[in-house]
Amino acid sequence: MDYQNDFISLSRKELVKIMKDAMSQRRYRHVLRVEKTAIELAEKYNIDKEKVSIAALAHDYAKEKPDEEMRDLIISENLELDMLQFGSNIWHGPIGAVLMKNEYQLEDEDILEAIKYHTIGSPTMGEIAQIIYVADYIEPNRLHKGVDKARKLAEKDLSATVAYITRQTLKHLIDRKNKIYPKAVETYNAWVVEK
Amino acid sequence: MDYQNDFISLSRKELVKIMKDAMSQRRYRHVLRVEKTAIELAEKYNIDKEKVSIAALAHDYAKEKPDEEMRDLIISENLELDMLQFGSNIWHGPIGAVLMKNEYQLEDEDILEAIKYHTIGSPTMGEIAQIIYVADYIEPNRLHKGVDKARKLAEKDLSATVAYITRQTLKHLIDRKNKIYPKAVETYNAWVVEK
Repeated sequence: MDYQNDFISLSRKELVKIMKDAMSQRRYRHVLRVEKTAIELAEKYNIDKEKVSIAALAHDYAKEKPDEEMRDLIISENLELDMLQFGSNIWHGPIGAVLMKNEYQLEDEDILEAIKYHTIGSPTMGEIAQIIYVADYIEPNRLHKGVDKARKLAEKDLSATVAYITRQTLKHLIDRKNKIYPKAVETYNAWVVEK
Repeated sequence: MDYQNDFISLSRKELVKIMKDAMSQRRYRHVLRVEKTAIELAEKYNIDKEKVSIAALAHDYAKEKPDEEMRDLIISENLELDMLQFGSNIWHGPIGAVLMKNEYQLEDEDILEAIKYHTIGSPTMGEIAQIIYVADYIEPNRLHKGVDKARKLAEKDLSATVAYITRQTLKHLIDRKNKIYPKAVETYNAWVVEK
């Protein structure tokens, strides 16, 4: 895919190269699978493929940054300080959006939102953000409990898939006695309960 | 039981009468069962029975107040405004504590904390609060899934029972697709994950 618009001053090839250099081979391959899955969803739901490609490629940009660098950015960029009680799993989405904006002048709010919220979701995610949230969960190598149901649901109802994934993720965290980021519960309340 | 201390300027009999007049017969009987269960726990764990009795009797004092009155108090008493997105199930603990303080000059922080947090818990609940949180869940008429395990656990480990109940409650809400108050997740993170 060649980018036709000006959402970012990079070709797709340049963006791919940046991601390849920013992470392990294993994660880089995951990123390419998320992009492929996300573009398939964009075609199905008639959503801007270029925005979806950029968001998918950049969604894990910050995932392998050192914790110390991420902590500093949470403070200097005025991100939610309650994130400091958590770890890179919660940080890398918001930090990735900040870095893409600072380093590559990415300004498109739909794309930034998709990067920012791809892990914890948000009550108001737009379609690009929904697609990345879903694609990250259902890309072909994922083996989560319930992933097949999510894949089937994604073929016919995007927002129902967001709701399903959100509920499954919360259940999984509680089953494993893992920590829950309270904002993730706001995503659950908005998508699972209210819709 | 006659109150020997000055935690409240009422006899137990007067406090019981206030509760009887503030709620339905059905709830009043629940309150008396919570008090009995809580005092048994206080004996087992060697915790002040008088504080436990007052907290148990008063824990649902606000439960049947009109929504409008509770909403006004959340605002005028500077309680957490994010509660306004929820309902009386979340409001009646914090409001009950405020009303007991305002109307009956109850000042003991252990008792007030127990009333305030008996539904959603808090990361730092003291022993009185833990007992009320547990007694409200396991009193003899309760039929929750897992209540027998909670009863057994309460015989030997109070804080483990708090953790168990917190996790069960969250699971139950997600199973039923019910709304979750984000602060309840802070209770979960503190008691289930960190301890």
